[in-house]
Amino acid sequence: MAYTTNTVSSLPPPDPKSSIAKERAQNAWDPVKMHYFLEGSKERAELIKDLTQQMERDPILAADFNYYELNKEQQRQLTAEKINRISRYIEVENFQDFNRRLSIIGVFDPQVATRIGVNLGLFLSCIRGNGTSDQLQYWALGKNTAYIRGIYGCFAMTELAHGSNVMGIETTATYDKENEEFVINTPHIGATKWWIGGAAHSATHAATYARLIVDGEDYGVKTFVVPLRDANHDLNPGITVGDIGAKMGRDGIDNGWIQYSNVRIPRYFMLQKFCKVSPQGDVTLPPLEQLSYSALLGGRVMMVLDSYRMIARMTTIALRYAIGRRQFKSQKALDADDSEDLPETQLLDYPLHQRRLLPYLAAAYVTSAGALKVETTIEETLNELDDAVDANDEAGIFKSIEAMKSLFIDSGALKATATWLAAETIDECRQSCGGHGYSSYNGFGKAYTDWVVQCTWEGDNNVLGINIGKPIVKHTWNVIENGKVVKGSSSFLTHTKDFVEGNGKKTWLNSLADLSDLNKIVKALEVLIIRLSYAAYKTAKVNSFDYVGSELVTITKLKAHHYLLSEFVKRINEFDDASLKPYLNLLGELYAATIVLDKFSGVFLTFNVVSTDLTSQLSSVHIPQLLAKVRPHTVAYTDSFQQSDMIINSAIGKFDGNIYENYFGIVKAQNPPRKTKAPYSGALEGMLNRPSLETRDRFEKSFESAEILSK
Amino acid sequence: MAYTTNTVSSLPPPDPKSSIAKERAQNAWDPVKMHYFLEGSKERAELIKDLTQQMERDPILAADFNYYELNKEQQRQLTAEKINRISRYIEVENFQDFNRRLSIIGVFDPQVATRIGVNLGLFLSCIRGNGTSDQLQYWALGKNTAYIRGIYGCFAMTELAHGSNVMGIETTATYDKENEEFVINTPHIGATKWWIGGAAHSATHAATYARLIVDGEDYGVKTFVVPLRDANHDLNPGITVGDIGAKMGRDGIDNGWIQYSNVRIPRYFMLQKFCKVSPQGDVTLPPLEQLSYSALLGGRVMMVLDSYRMIARMTTIALRYAIGRRQFKSQKALDADDSEDLPETQLLDYPLHQRRLLPYLAAAYVTSAGALKVETTIEETLNELDDAVDANDEAGIFKSIEAMKSLFIDSGALKATATWLAAETIDECRQSCGGHGYSSYNGFGKAYTDWVVQCTWEGDNNVLGINIGKPIVKHTWNVIENGKVVKGSSSFLTHTKDFVEGNGKKTWLNSLADLSDLNKIVKALEVLIIRLSYAAYKTAKVNSFDYVGSELVTITKLKAHHYLLSEFVKRINEFDDASLKPYLNLLGELYAATIVLDKFSGVFLTFNVVSTDLTSQLSSVHIPQLLAKVRPHTVAYTDSFQQSDMIINSAIGKFDGNIYENYFGIVKAQNPPRKTKAPYSGALEGMLNRPSLETRDRFEKSFESAEILSK
Repeated sequence: MAYTTNTVSSLPPPDPKSSIAKERAQNAWDPVKMHYFLEGSKERAELIKDLTQQMERDPILAADFNYYELNKEQQRQLTAEKINRISRYIEVENFQDFNRRLSIIGVFDPQVATRIGVNLGLFLSCIRGNGTSDQLQYWALGKNTAYIRGIYGCFAMTELAHGSNVMGIETTATYDKENEEFVINTPHIGATKWWIGGAAHSATHAATYARLIVDGEDYGVKTFVVPLRDANHDLNPGITVGDIGAKMGRDGIDNGWIQYSNVRIPRYFMLQKFCKVSPQGDVTLPPLEQLSYSALLGGRVMMVLDSYRMIARMTTIALRYAIGRRQFKSQKALDADDSEDLPETQLLDYPLHQRRLLPYLAAAYVTSAGALKVETTIEETLNELDDAVDANDEAGIFKSIEAMKSLFIDSGALKATATWLAAETIDECRQSCGGHGYSSYNGFGKAYTDWVVQCTWEGDNNVLGINIGKPIVKHTWNVIENGKVVKGSSSFLTHTKDFVEGNGKKTWLNSLADLSDLNKIVKALEVLIIRLSYAAYKTAKVNSFDYVGSELVTITKLKAHHYLLSEFVKRINEFDDASLKPYLNLLGELYAATIVLDKFSGVFLTFNVVSTDLTSQLSSVHIPQLLAKVRPHTVAYTDSFQQSDMIINSAIGKFDGNIYENYFGIVKAQNPPRKTKAPYSGALEGMLNRPSLETRDRFEKSFESAEILSK
Repeated sequence: MAYTTNTVSSLPPPDPKSSIAKERAQNAWDPVKMHYFLEGSKERAELIKDLTQQMERDPILAADFNYYELNKEQQRQLTAEKINRISRYIEVENFQDFNRRLSIIGVFDPQVATRIGVNLGLFLSCIRGNGTSDQLQYWALGKNTAYIRGIYGCFAMTELAHGSNVMGIETTATYDKENEEFVINTPHIGATKWWIGGAAHSATHAATYARLIVDGEDYGVKTFVVPLRDANHDLNPGITVGDIGAKMGRDGIDNGWIQYSNVRIPRYFMLQKFCKVSPQGDVTLPPLEQLSYSALLGGRVMMVLDSYRMIARMTTIALRYAIGRRQFKSQKALDADDSEDLPETQLLDYPLHQRRLLPYLAAAYVTSAGALKVETTIEETLNELDDAVDANDEAGIFKSIEAMKSLFIDSGALKATATWLAAETIDECRQSCGGHGYSSYNGFGKAYTDWVVQCTWEGDNNVLGINIGKPIVKHTWNVIENGKVVKGSSSFLTHTKDFVEGNGKKTWLNSLADLSDLNKIVKALEVLIIRLSYAAYKTAKVNSFDYVGSELVTITKLKAHHYLLSEFVKRINEFDDASLKPYLNLLGELYAATIVLDKFSGVFLTFNVVSTDLTSQLSSVHIPQLLAKVRPHTVAYTDSFQQSDMIINSAIGKFDGNIYENYFGIVKAQNPPRKTKAPYSGALEGMLNRPSLETRDRFEKSFESAEILSK
């Protein structure tokens, strides 16, 4: 048996960095090349690299470990200073590149990205989506909002008592014909604008959603630009603004509340691309109410991209740790002849650990493809719409609106599914690092608390789940009852009758070989969506749609996986580096097997899309085999994300894999052990050294007292 | 159509408090009586109430909304002050009552409970479990540790490179025969004691796990009491202590790291109930290595109770909000004749919202029963062991050790399953409150970040999952290969052959009626555990246990649900208030249907324990029906937890249900709107009012410059 004498360093210290170096030396591909796939092209990948390097060296923008020590006030201040700094970049680079920059910042300091995003994203998108091109031109460029100069916008949509139900908000904008002004008012506490990012201290203007009232008639919710603060940054009269205060995360953002007390704005501050009020009070209504929410689309699309980058970052940390960390000896090591001499087993060599983490690695790859696709689609759609509006091309407008409806479905399904998946990833990755996952310096804690609001804002995931599932089930309803032909990405619903009722028992995945065929899995997803949607239609018909909420959410998730998996397959087919394709296919299979088939096994089985025997083989044979194939390439897969140590910003997640020395070094640097007492040590010492209870009770409860007092 | 004129309060404000008052007026039972069930008895329930009231009024202990504003240093200080205050209570009340007090504190300020717990729980439990009764007497009472006076202990088990694998820790305790001393040493960075709660600033002593080395031989890990700080609270020579720094949560706890550099302690500072080193260096080893981890048992058991209270607190908040909050109109409301006049629908009247939250309400009730049972069991087992040791009764010792092994299984399975369930509850409850769930003042954020470490510490949930699943599968192995008869709570495994192979296709739940029979569901769980365990045994036999990690974790969870559901049924049967039983049974059925059958539907189906048809009915018929039955009693169920507003400490979760006014009031009180500028507003104003880029570039890039410079 190994033993030790009592001298320093008698036992060899752990050597995690050799483990990662050894695996890295065997990389089967060049991670830089794989990064081209993940970012969509060589050009874009190189841009990402350049922007990252620029920010790593920037004295204000670069993240470090002190970031994890900041309290709310310090985070707010640092965020403001970073935005000030970023405003200098935006003046000298093109909009596309700046968007990439923001997407990277979103990984290592999401609160900065959000606090800018409410201005450049939501405020300007709202003007772009609802205002005329002159209105956009005026505020974005004329008044320099696009350069974060002069004007800082916020997005005043949600209210204390109305969030998801935007149509129900209660702030009013009453037209005053005499003065050609709108009077903006908050009628009661419930209509207080709430959660408004940037309102508390930053914003000078608010894109305000309010009910248009003309001559006593309520025309529903429209959008208005309302100045909050003057050029001296003092609050305008009639404006009350407050700080929302402490949040679960993203404390760097100054979310606020706003109450309007009869605030007057000129008629031409109403955004009037679609909806117009003439000086005389004649109202022109928009062709589609949803158009006023197009401002949210960009954010949703961005969140899918954010999800990819966050999943990549988290899995990189957890997997580097799982390679360096050793724990127990595996059964295999214990059974070996030289068991005594073997070191403990690397965490990632345990099949359970692989099962916990590698599916998320695959999810990062698969999500990247869908994220890029939906990002391209929205740009195209919005441009086409703008062109059609400018050309007054009515047919073009309606065509764009149809495209927009599809985009609402796709981006909403992806936003909900990807942000949930990322939240789950952060949590599982943290847990997989044991206690060390709980240290702020390893990055998971702040990542999680900052992240999870993505599941709620700009379309609550469950509400999106319902709003997207419902039109799908309605398609089914129309297919069955009216013989409708469905177009677009849900066209497979047209053939519903071939897969339900008498045909509802046929399984669609029947052998292990089927599980390796991504096209068959995409097909199986279609059959499952068809059958689940059909079942929901039957229930809804009898009991109303209220009773199938849970099914609608599941349908939405399946639809998103269908989109992601299809796009991933397409992207692989289009990719020009054939040598990498097998490794990409492998992750596609793992994703399909775990995140899709295994996670939804209950529904796949209930609706007979797979058999019980195959499901049993899926978990006992197929998934373990895939994990074993992915395992040797883990370092290459994570290195391919090309996230630098600054972006990773995690002691145990650094590139060199020297987990213990990095971690201990950072803990000591941030908390110098020379300070052996806390500021409050007096309270502790006073407690520990307090006199006995008898003494402190002045001996009044003593035997002697009893003798005297009982007399 | 309803419209509004532009005057203040023209629209009626939301009136959430009437909604809850109306439902409360219809309560079907007295919540005080139901609380007797939840706490196990009238006496205990009343004690809980009295203790709560005492702490609500205590100037230092009471929680308030300022609690959510504190930064790390402030949390540390407040926690120390609270412990100082609590030390006065412990001097004047009995140990049982004090434990109840701590359990309540664990709900509204878990960091206080933990920071005390490392001293009174882990440190003293370690001495109790491993020391002689004289050693316990000496330190606990003689030196006043039990009264948080004189000595403050910490629990130095885990190291930087060894957490779950306690047998592998590398700190050494080398016996020096000459001086009758142990020399405690940290041989390298990996052996640095890490995550030690209380070490950074509080602890005077550390119960230290170290390898016993005598005459060059390594006897494995034993326990030693090592003084860290003297009576002046100054660090002893050879002791290096540092602060672990920022964490995801529980910043009120001063977790630290410790390095020992040849620190000498007297021989009699080794804890020697089972393992002894004589002055001459003769070593007596303990009868069971695991005995030295008995210190962890108490904590695990406490965490099951914590889970119940936390699930109760979170569901109370989310459900009160779901009753007061209205959002959209349900399909039912839209279809009504008076649709226009109806208010928006209460969130909790949507079946999806019920589906999301009510299962956790049921989980609180079901968990309470199991928590109380396992708490009683550990007390009995430890007392029997102590008695046997004191009486030198060898048979008694071994009997207790057997009981202890069962307790390791039950408490470990429950700890893992209940803490995961609570984490999931907090997250789902937060999401169900939309954006407002993200505000610190509503309680979810801090609850979550403080909570989730429970899934990691004192037995990582996944490691526990394996360590508990493995003996179960080994039982199966022995039953099949050696005809073993299994005793105790897993005795049903004895009949494995009746349920597998040829008998493996028989379903055990066949009709909707079966789903309402909790005893049948308990039986179905047994069959599922048998079949899954049998499958795992077959795989393990071919491929080793490494390959069934995921199955082992599932078995552990199923075992915990089996325990919880069985105990819940027993407790209902024993409960003397027959009028409440139907409401308790209803929650048992809901728990079984959702948390057990639906959540594990994939495995239930794969192993043919239920049919696909019944699973389909489970989700489309049975669960909706149960939810509809539970819905009307929601207020009564949550009021029955009897958690006061101080314990709930959530703006939207207060008893009166006046969600908006309470919330807005707290936001304003914590962040007075009179302060219209932030301390850092200068940075923002400087950015917004900066001169144009041309000006700042000194016009060097102008056309005029070009003319001059290009010449």
